[in-house]
Amino acid sequence: MERIPILKVGEFLLVSIQVDMHDRLVLSLQDDLTAQVVVSRAKGVLIDISALDMVDSFIGRMLGNMAAMTRALGAETVVVGMQPAVAITIVELGLVLTDVRTAINVDKGMALLQNLLNESSVIDSHEFHEK
Amino acid sequence: MERIPILKVGEFLLVSIQVDMHDRLVLSLQDDLTAQVVVSRAKGVLIDISALDMVDSFIGRMLGNMAAMTRALGAETVVVGMQPAVAITIVELGLVLTDVRTAINVDKGMALLQNLLNESSVIDSHEFHEK
Repeated sequence: MERIPILKVGEFLLVSIQVDMHDRLVLSLQDDLTAQVVVSRAKGVLIDISALDMVDSFIGRMLGNMAAMTRALGAETVVVGMQPAVAITIVELGLVLTDVRTAINVDKGMALLQNLLNESSVIDSHEFHEK
Repeated sequence: MERIPILKVGEFLLVSIQVDMHDRLVLSLQDDLTAQVVVSRAKGVLIDISALDMVDSFIGRMLGNMAAMTRALGAETVVVGMQPAVAITIVELGLVLTDVRTAINVDKGMALLQNLLNESSVIDSHEFHEK
């Protein structure tokens, strides 16, 4: 079972991280996720970390990298379900989750992604009118 | 990380099974799932098994039990993401997934649950008119 499933839920992709992440698993997740963003033309990615009791700089960097990769492909990433203890650790360790948006749960994360999509479509239509 | 997260997605609950299920984990998942169905008043449960390369009679019974438990609480269960090899094994082993509905992926599973909900609301309104 050394593969993290990527679930298509409506317009978005959902990844639930439940197992300890090691280097090879992170690499295969990055490969799978970027491929799925392209194939499914998803506009947003939700990464659920509610099963994680702790984070370290490795996980923090992984989340930041995946957000940057999906953004390069035109999709936004929202990390959802962070446990209070994890939020405390992130601040105490001074981890910087660059470019990583968060939401309390999947529903709120989807609403956030939908808002971001609506905003960007407004910007797109403005740009269109300016031409 | 010995807990399987249960994600609320709109009206439904989504459980993605990624780790080897042992007795204690199954029991805690059953507790959590039934509690969440009650708390969130979810009308449907999606169990994603796309990360499972194989099933045995234990997993088959677990899926059947969870479907029966959630049905007792008024929610339908759909198992999604079954791999072809798993479907073959189920038939070859003669496993009977009683009361377990299946769909190819989360989107189709949600559509199936939505259909079941609409059907049951039609029945409800018929019953209402008969009174």
